[in-house]
Amino acid sequence: MAEHFDVSRSAIAAEVGRLIGLRLVEEVEPVASRGGRRPAIIDLAGGVRFVGIAIGATSVSAAVTDGCLQVLAFERLQCDVRQGPEPVLELATELSRKLLRQLGVQQPLGVGVGVPGPVDFSRGILVSPPIMPGWGGYPVRDFLAQEFGCPAVMDNDVNVMALGEQHAGVAGKAENLLFVKIGTGIGCGIVANGDLYRGMNGCAGDMGHVPIADSEAHCGCGNTGCLEASFSGAALSRDALAAARSGSSPLLWELLDRHGTLTAVEVGRAARAGDAASVKLVRDGGRRVGQVLAGVVSFFNPELIVLGGGLTLLSHVLLAEIRAVIYRRSLPLATRSLPIMVSQVGQQGGVIGAARLVSEEVYRFSR
Amino acid sequence: MAEHFDVSRSAIAAEVGRLIGLRLVEEVEPVASRGGRRPAIIDLAGGVRFVGIAIGATSVSAAVTDGCLQVLAFERLQCDVRQGPEPVLELATELSRKLLRQLGVQQPLGVGVGVPGPVDFSRGILVSPPIMPGWGGYPVRDFLAQEFGCPAVMDNDVNVMALGEQHAGVAGKAENLLFVKIGTGIGCGIVANGDLYRGMNGCAGDMGHVPIADSEAHCGCGNTGCLEASFSGAALSRDALAAARSGSSPLLWELLDRHGTLTAVEVGRAARAGDAASVKLVRDGGRRVGQVLAGVVSFFNPELIVLGGGLTLLSHVLLAEIRAVIYRRSLPLATRSLPIMVSQVGQQGGVIGAARLVSEEVYRFSR
Repeated sequence: MAEHFDVSRSAIAAEVGRLIGLRLVEEVEPVASRGGRRPAIIDLAGGVRFVGIAIGATSVSAAVTDGCLQVLAFERLQCDVRQGPEPVLELATELSRKLLRQLGVQQPLGVGVGVPGPVDFSRGILVSPPIMPGWGGYPVRDFLAQEFGCPAVMDNDVNVMALGEQHAGVAGKAENLLFVKIGTGIGCGIVANGDLYRGMNGCAGDMGHVPIADSEAHCGCGNTGCLEASFSGAALSRDALAAARSGSSPLLWELLDRHGTLTAVEVGRAARAGDAASVKLVRDGGRRVGQVLAGVVSFFNPELIVLGGGLTLLSHVLLAEIRAVIYRRSLPLATRSLPIMVSQVGQQGGVIGAARLVSEEVYRFSR
Repeated sequence: MAEHFDVSRSAIAAEVGRLIGLRLVEEVEPVASRGGRRPAIIDLAGGVRFVGIAIGATSVSAAVTDGCLQVLAFERLQCDVRQGPEPVLELATELSRKLLRQLGVQQPLGVGVGVPGPVDFSRGILVSPPIMPGWGGYPVRDFLAQEFGCPAVMDNDVNVMALGEQHAGVAGKAENLLFVKIGTGIGCGIVANGDLYRGMNGCAGDMGHVPIADSEAHCGCGNTGCLEASFSGAALSRDALAAARSGSSPLLWELLDRHGTLTAVEVGRAARAGDAASVKLVRDGGRRVGQVLAGVVSFFNPELIVLGGGLTLLSHVLLAEIRAVIYRRSLPLATRSLPIMVSQVGQQGGVIGAARLVSEEVYRFSR
C-alpha cells in the first residue's frame, strides 16, 4: 500500500487505524511475512451496510447491501406515490428496517433514495415533481437521515438507475452514458465525463417532454406533441383502449373484456401473440423514442445507451425499432461504435444505484 | 500564500522559485514588511505569451495573448479551409509569427487552435470532418507544436468559442453552458459540470444534424430534415435566391442583381429594411433553431445559452423567435431562470478560447 500510494508506511498505518476506528475497514488475516512486522490484508469491514430505496410511481423497493454493494436483502411493495411523502416514506422506512432486522444489522452507514421527479440534490428536496403531489419541498433526505441516524442522499430515479447499471449492469466503466427509462413516463440519467450530470435545476434528462415530429397529442405538462404524450405506459393504455373499442384489434378487445383494463402488460402480450394493432402501437412508439434519441445522440455523442423501465419488456420489436431509427437518423460518426442495450439489472437497478450514491458520500467524507 | 494554501512558508518559497525558473511567475515589487523577511508580490510573469488560432470555413484568425489571456495582437484573413491542411496551417503559422514579431516575442508558451470539424482531442487530429477535405487524420496539433517549439492543443471551434465566452464574454462562471454557433453550419459547445464535454468521438454538440419536424430538405450528411439543411448560411442563401427568382421579394431581386449573389449578409440587410420575404426566412429559421434547442434544453437543463456565429447578426427577429420557441416549448422548470443571450466577444471568441485551452494545459503541466 505504501508503495502504491507513494506515502510512508507509518502514514498508511495511521490512516488504516483511523478507518478501523470508523468501522469502515478491518484487518482480515495476516499474510506470510517478507521480513519485519507481519503485514495484514486490509479489506472493507465485513459489517458495512448501506440501505438503498427506490420510490416509483406505483411501488417502493428497498435493499440492504454490504460495503461492496452486493444486495443482501431486497423487497418490493406496491404503493401509490400520490399518497404524499409521509405515508410513502414511512412504508419505505418500515420495509428497510424489516430487512435490516432480518440481517441482524444494528446501524446502516448510509441511506440512498431515488425518486421519480426533479431533485435539488444539494438541498435534498424535490422541486415541482409533476407526478408526486405534496412532495415538492418536503425534506426527504433529512427525514431519512434522522430516521436511520446516518447520512442520506436523494436523487432522481433515472440517475440512481444509471449508477446501478454502472455498478451491476452492462454499463461498466462507461464515462459518457445515457440510461433511458421507458415506463409510466420517459426520462434519462446522464453520465458525462464520468460523473452524473444533473443540470441547472436537477431536471436534465427529461426526454419525455422533447417535442416530436408527427404528434399533436396533449401532454400533462400543458404542451402538445411531447414524446411521452405519444408513447409511455399511460399513452399506450389510452391507445390500446381506443384500438380495442374501434374494433381494429379483436385480441385487445378480448383482453379488455377479461381484465377490465388494458395496460402495457396486455399490449405486450397481444404484440407477442402477433396482434397487428398491438405490434403497430409498439413499433410506432419505438419510432418516436428513436426519433428523440437520434437527436440526443447527435447532441450528446454517448458511449453507450442502456434502455430500462417496464416498457422495454413489451416486445423485441420495440428495441429493434429504436435501434433502427437511431442508426439511420444520427450522425454516423456518433453511432459507429455506439451500443444500444437493454438493462440487465432489472428491478434492483434503482436500489443498487441509490446504495452506491450514498456509499460514495460516506467513503468520500470518511477521508 | 502560506496561510491561504495551508502549507509551510518554505514550501511556498521553493515552489515560487521553481515557477520563476520556468518563467511562469515573477516577483513584481516588494511590499511593506510585517516583520521578518520582506514579502514580495508574486504575479504571472509579464513575458508569458500564448498564441490562439481559429480556423473557420472561410477565414483564419490568430491572436497573441499575455498570461491572463488579454489579446495583445489580433488579425483575421480570408482563407478557404478546403485548400487542405498544409497551405492553411502555413498561413496560420505565418500570421501568428508576424504578430509575435510585431510584439517582439521570442517564444510563446503554448499554441491553441480551434477547427470547424470533429476532433479526437487526445490524438490532436480531425476525424471525418465534413467541410474540411484532406484534413482527416492530419497531425495538426503536432505540426503546430513543432513549428512553434511549445505545447499545442486542438479542439472543435464551438468548444474553444465556449471557453472564450467563459473567459471574456457573457458566460462568466457558468458551469453548465451551451454555446450555439449559427453560421455556415450549426454546432454547439457544451460545458457540463464545469468542464468541456466532447462526447465519445469528439462530435458532441452537433446540433445541425438533429432532425426537425416540418422539413424534408436534403442535407449534406445524406439524411433529410436536418436542422442545418433548413437553416444555416448555405440554406439561407439557397432560400433567398429562390425568393428573388420567384418574384416574391423585389428587394432581394435587386440585391441579387447588384451583388451577383445573395448571402446571409444581403438577407439580413433586406430583413432590416422590412422586406417581408426576408423577415419570413429569418423567422422560419429562428423557429427551427428554437425547436431543436427546446428539446436540447429539456434534455440538458443548461444554466445559460449563448448564441454566436455570423447569422446571429441577421436581425433581432432571429433571437426573438428562438427565445419565444424555447420558452414556450421547453419544460418550465428548465427555463424559469435560463438566460438566452447573444455572444459579446464576437470574432475574437475563438482565438481567446484557443489560447485559454492551451494555457490550461501549460499551467497544469507546470505543476
